[in-house]
Amino acid sequence: MAVNLYDSAYALEAAIRESDEFLYLKMMYDGVNADPASKNMFDHFREIQMTLQQKQMTGQNISEQELQQAQASVLQVQQNEKIFRLMEAEQRMNMIIHEINQVVMKPLLELYGERQ
Amino acid sequence: MAVNLYDSAYALEAAIRESDEFLYLKMMYDGVNADPASKNMFDHFREIQMTLQQKQMTGQNISEQELQQAQASVLQVQQNEKIFRLMEAEQRMNMIIHEINQVVMKPLLELYGERQ
Ligand SMILES: [Ca+2]
Ligand SMILES: [Ca+2]
Repeated sequence: MAVNLYDSAYALEAAIRESDEFLYLKMMYDGVNADPASKNMFDHFREIQMTLQQKQMTGQNISEQELQQAQASVLQVQQNEKIFRLMEAEQRMNMIIHEINQVVMKPLLELYGERQ
Repeated sequence: MAVNLYDSAYALEAAIRESDEFLYLKMMYDGVNADPASKNMFDHFREIQMTLQQKQMTGQNISEQELQQAQASVLQVQQNEKIFRLMEAEQRMNMIIHEINQVVMKPLLELYGERQ
């Protein structure tokens, strides 16, 4: 990778690392991890989500029971303030990453757009 | 998005746009587009590739005939120097984008890594 590209990528990495949104996300993560009950609840929720996602991607059936279990775990984590704030922080960070990608990928999107 | 993040993302976008690799890719694209025979061949190849990808993702069967057609189109584009160079340039650009993503996403990868 050319020096200029490399430098610019590292500058963006540093800007992300120092952003309020990343620092807040990290704080919310630490908050959940420091509380065993919240951590267990969140790990359980994540596991259910991942199992469902994997089944959807591979076209497997999802049972009524699994759906109910998933809905129950969503309600559970929404009532846990630490986890709720962590998930909000994750969503905000994901939006920022999406915006960054839109900006950074513009040259390629324009190039592919021109071809059509 | 915070000003610093925004500025850094745009600086990286400019660095990509001005990089030798992007300028070369653009030149190779223009070369294929300026030659109707190459452009048709490449569009045909892309169409076959996308159809196969879509079938794979949705779990549809790919017939022996389709596979042979795909292999023939790969051989065809590999023998067209304009397209071959464009595909090389695309691969190089994809590698750079991958490297950039590795750098930029490091804060988040580290954060998620810590949780496990
Ligand atoms: Ca800020
Ligand atoms: Ca260069």
